[in-house]
Amino acid sequence: MQRKIYIENMPLDDARKLWMSHLNSLGFLTPEVETIMIQDALNRITGQAVYARRSAPHYPAAAMDGIAVRAADTYGATEKSPIYIKSNKYIEVDTGDYVPDGYDAVVMIEDVNFENGQVRIIQPAVPWQHIRSIGEDMVAQDLLLPSYTRIGPYELASLITAAVNEIQVVKQPVVAIIPTGTELVESGTDNMTPGTVVESNSHMLSAFCQQWGAIPLRHPIVADNRELLKRAVLEMIDQSDMLIICSGSSAGREDYTAGIVEELGELLVHGLAIRPGKPAILGSIQSKPVIGVPGYPISAQLVFNLFARPALFGRQGIPEPQETMLNCQIARKLPSPMGVDEYVYVNCASLPSGYYAYPLNRGAGVTTSLVKSDGFIRIPRGSEGIQAGEVMQVCLHRSRQTIDNSIVCIGSHDLAIDVLADLLQRRYGIRLISSNVGSMGGIMSLRRQETHMSGIHLLDPQTGDYNTSYLRRYLSGINWKLLTLVKRQQGLIIKPGNPLNIRGLTDLTRSGVRFVNRQKGSGTRVLLDYLLSKENIKPEDIYGYNHEEYTHLAVAAAVQNDSCDVGMGVYASARVLGLDFIPLVEEDYELCILTDIIRPDHVEFLIDIIRSQEFIERVTSLGGYNLEGSGHFRLSSD
Amino acid sequence: MQRKIYIENMPLDDARKLWMSHLNSLGFLTPEVETIMIQDALNRITGQAVYARRSAPHYPAAAMDGIAVRAADTYGATEKSPIYIKSNKYIEVDTGDYVPDGYDAVVMIEDVNFENGQVRIIQPAVPWQHIRSIGEDMVAQDLLLPSYTRIGPYELASLITAAVNEIQVVKQPVVAIIPTGTELVESGTDNMTPGTVVESNSHMLSAFCQQWGAIPLRHPIVADNRELLKRAVLEMIDQSDMLIICSGSSAGREDYTAGIVEELGELLVHGLAIRPGKPAILGSIQSKPVIGVPGYPISAQLVFNLFARPALFGRQGIPEPQETMLNCQIARKLPSPMGVDEYVYVNCASLPSGYYAYPLNRGAGVTTSLVKSDGFIRIPRGSEGIQAGEVMQVCLHRSRQTIDNSIVCIGSHDLAIDVLADLLQRRYGIRLISSNVGSMGGIMSLRRQETHMSGIHLLDPQTGDYNTSYLRRYLSGINWKLLTLVKRQQGLIIKPGNPLNIRGLTDLTRSGVRFVNRQKGSGTRVLLDYLLSKENIKPEDIYGYNHEEYTHLAVAAAVQNDSCDVGMGVYASARVLGLDFIPLVEEDYELCILTDIIRPDHVEFLIDIIRSQEFIERVTSLGGYNLEGSGHFRLSSD
Repeated sequence: MQRKIYIENMPLDDARKLWMSHLNSLGFLTPEVETIMIQDALNRITGQAVYARRSAPHYPAAAMDGIAVRAADTYGATEKSPIYIKSNKYIEVDTGDYVPDGYDAVVMIEDVNFENGQVRIIQPAVPWQHIRSIGEDMVAQDLLLPSYTRIGPYELASLITAAVNEIQVVKQPVVAIIPTGTELVESGTDNMTPGTVVESNSHMLSAFCQQWGAIPLRHPIVADNRELLKRAVLEMIDQSDMLIICSGSSAGREDYTAGIVEELGELLVHGLAIRPGKPAILGSIQSKPVIGVPGYPISAQLVFNLFARPALFGRQGIPEPQETMLNCQIARKLPSPMGVDEYVYVNCASLPSGYYAYPLNRGAGVTTSLVKSDGFIRIPRGSEGIQAGEVMQVCLHRSRQTIDNSIVCIGSHDLAIDVLADLLQRRYGIRLISSNVGSMGGIMSLRRQETHMSGIHLLDPQTGDYNTSYLRRYLSGINWKLLTLVKRQQGLIIKPGNPLNIRGLTDLTRSGVRFVNRQKGSGTRVLLDYLLSKENIKPEDIYGYNHEEYTHLAVAAAVQNDSCDVGMGVYASARVLGLDFIPLVEEDYELCILTDIIRPDHVEFLIDIIRSQEFIERVTSLGGYNLEGSGHFRLSSD
Repeated sequence: MQRKIYIENMPLDDARKLWMSHLNSLGFLTPEVETIMIQDALNRITGQAVYARRSAPHYPAAAMDGIAVRAADTYGATEKSPIYIKSNKYIEVDTGDYVPDGYDAVVMIEDVNFENGQVRIIQPAVPWQHIRSIGEDMVAQDLLLPSYTRIGPYELASLITAAVNEIQVVKQPVVAIIPTGTELVESGTDNMTPGTVVESNSHMLSAFCQQWGAIPLRHPIVADNRELLKRAVLEMIDQSDMLIICSGSSAGREDYTAGIVEELGELLVHGLAIRPGKPAILGSIQSKPVIGVPGYPISAQLVFNLFARPALFGRQGIPEPQETMLNCQIARKLPSPMGVDEYVYVNCASLPSGYYAYPLNRGAGVTTSLVKSDGFIRIPRGSEGIQAGEVMQVCLHRSRQTIDNSIVCIGSHDLAIDVLADLLQRRYGIRLISSNVGSMGGIMSLRRQETHMSGIHLLDPQTGDYNTSYLRRYLSGINWKLLTLVKRQQGLIIKPGNPLNIRGLTDLTRSGVRFVNRQKGSGTRVLLDYLLSKENIKPEDIYGYNHEEYTHLAVAAAVQNDSCDVGMGVYASARVLGLDFIPLVEEDYELCILTDIIRPDHVEFLIDIIRSQEFIERVTSLGGYNLEGSGHFRLSSD
């Protein structure tokens, strides 16, 4: 074994300084220019100062509809002693018409009376009235735009008016992107074997390039082979201003990237004291900057945003756009290692007590955290983390408008919540932030008043009733209402055809039956434990009782993929993945709404949707749902 | 004469309500959808809820580089009594590798010692440690995105990972744009005759469409001919979702637009109580919305933003993006008619006392006002206007970053200021807001401390000195420094070859010589009056003494275009337009900087630039400049 395990741990600030100064020494931060036709100039950036080539207007122009006259011919006109002007002494003009030599005023049509081929004027015109003089808008040689200015709709119109038909603009940097990894397969591949991964990072980074005004140039996937990768690097470096190598940047045995950068150019940094994103590579080959981004999507985009973004904006002569910052209370504790700058992606929402940030799954492979997120917080090096309730700046990548129009629903998950989320967005432009922490987690969020509402299905074993006793116990002093969402079938999710011949809970203890459980605090776990105790089944007799998943679909997927043979969950999740199902119980899944926290109009929208034909039909079609009473309040705190 | 002069005057709010309800009744606000390949989906908007088609990971994956083992095989391992695992009981794995059936834990490479074909383990593995379970990121059938959600880089990556190869997205609305007017010529035309106008509005509106996600479809210019316009309308309405007719919407005699809308469809509104933009037309033809936008560029874009923008976002199922609002003190009084909502475009800058908004030229034909502007204020109907110093909300269309990085320079204009503006932007990313109000206007802005600095060249006839006495008189109690920018040649700008044989100021009184003056309060006017009085020339003997222009270039352009024969200005403005010049005086043009208002680093940047070789060369090459002492402080208030 000759693996090189150790990589550097350079503090982010040092690496950024080193990188920018390296870029500067490479001449990368001096924009290159090209000349293009004005028709193609939208969103491009001027490469030099642009001056008007023609005045506008380029002739004296009528500013009103009316007649052009000599002002002197109207002097002395009053209502009582009007002046008549003959048809050879005036001309009719519309707005924008040329006012020829010899005329020096325009009288508005409203002030003109036509009488027998002459016009009657009842007040004198002031010289140059209602005439736009030459160059009123711009004079030839006026500075229209300085260097490094983006051409938007207004600039485009002005340049066209100024007869600027060709324009020097900043060249769009070309960014070559090479995905590498023997495990990678191109998108669009179905029937993937275990161990293969769809290559998505290069597409994500290409999309960022496009948003930043650069041109991405993607190479097909290169296998983990030093010679092949080297050949691809040399081929792409010639065609581009900057090179990105995706993956292959950790110290795993197939990681040739750092070695190739070192061989062909200069290896500046290998390894950053950030999380995620540690195994990043910075360097240059043939005087062109090279970044090796880690393979995990969250790491990849973070390294790309931290290092490629400032480089590419600098290359175009414009400052990196600042993201909006928003002060938020962090909803839960975030421990963080002292030695790194850690980036944590969060959802944000507005509550009466201010903005809240809800940290998302920190797994670097969880692309859905990025999709859900509104921004990130940075836990600086030297900090051990953040306490719940601490206020931090969130760097937003989503609009305040979306954040302000969000309903937070922390608690148990149900497929009907997804339908609700879709219809809220579709009909009212409201985003539902739904976080799956189980019913007990939901109760705790309600108790801390950090959520607008919560989906819960908690059986009280004593009463056989759902939710009521938990709310009374945990939410004293808080105003809430309980809205019926659905009744749903809970049961055992099994493989198609039931190959192990499972009939009920007692079969879970059979040898060779692998179970998968839901996490502690979930309503389904509470229900299972209740049912097991009723049947006197001991958890320790069930193989896999401690193997936990976090959603109904995750349980079903585990059965489908043969990670286990049986799990407990709702019928719809079995059905949607083509599995069989043994019904055990119909349970109440309800929304507990905090009436002092949520906006009243949002409650109305929720009810409207839940009672709507579309909601009822879509949820019913999932299977195992009963929508009797849906959208009606069953109980409240009063 | 059968002109229809009168058009409606509908309040804006009423028109907007009517319009949105009309759009709704046309079904325009229900998005249409289409299915596209995921590769083409960047920036598109989902047409329905998108669910994952595959779990990710779709197999149990190593989360670390190391070895996969059975956790049970490691139980009991300690440093003192290590456990040895044989090579047939473990497999080496890299991050992301498949962990096959029979293995349920990964031991990190750092914790593994390879010894004689076996590995030594010194602590037990926990089951499922360092293994990403199936669906950790997403489970098949998870809701990835609700309807009407924009697909950015993150969404793209997640969709690719989820095996979503085709996706239903909202169709981009097609907007047909017909420019009409006999006076219009296509861009790229040189040698334009008086009375013709380059058609730029359709290009500006097309650019907005692109920014808003719509597809513009431009028709060539249609002359003012009812049949031709009608034919174009019928041709375009078939190919588009919405039709825009540019110009032809006032009540001038060549305005057929309203008539055609009335004939072919429904004319909803003709004439709005807004300024600019009054002669707007709203209606529909063949159930497709139609907007007639006025001919002036500022009116055109305002009407388009007010009516097409909400329609096109609504058509795509997403809310209109909210512009950022910024509270600003309005720098000067803005009277406004009671009966209209008036939109005034402004520049914004940050001063120590808060944000200031500087109103720009309100002329509806002044496209450069739009280019310069950072946003607008709306003076509501029922208000008679705004007092200087009043705080108003500015609706921004430029970033706060740009506004915060601006230097305001109100005063006299000089071509060297343009070079300065270009180099500030180019080297430091700082925008120079330069407003040409003449030297005395600059002094007044300095006195009100509403500008960072001012370009001035005010001769004191008593002393023959420039600027000093004015600053001492008007700026008492204010800290300022006077920075030498340039010395420059002032003189008479005349036609090439001097056809009227002008030799000096006395020739201005000759019959047949048409003069053009600069506005009162400009340094050039002060200088002229001084020189005239020295030579005992009476202003009333000069034809055109009261014909005023506002910049040196405007004076030169007036001479060039034969609006007059002679004007006074700097040599460079004559030279740049190819005119002749009779030098009269070398004068000092200086920057008066308010040291308590401007940022100290900005002063350093200014000095660096003014002393730089590039500035000196560029200004010198304009002609008539002397850069001796440039970039040095000559005087200060202390």
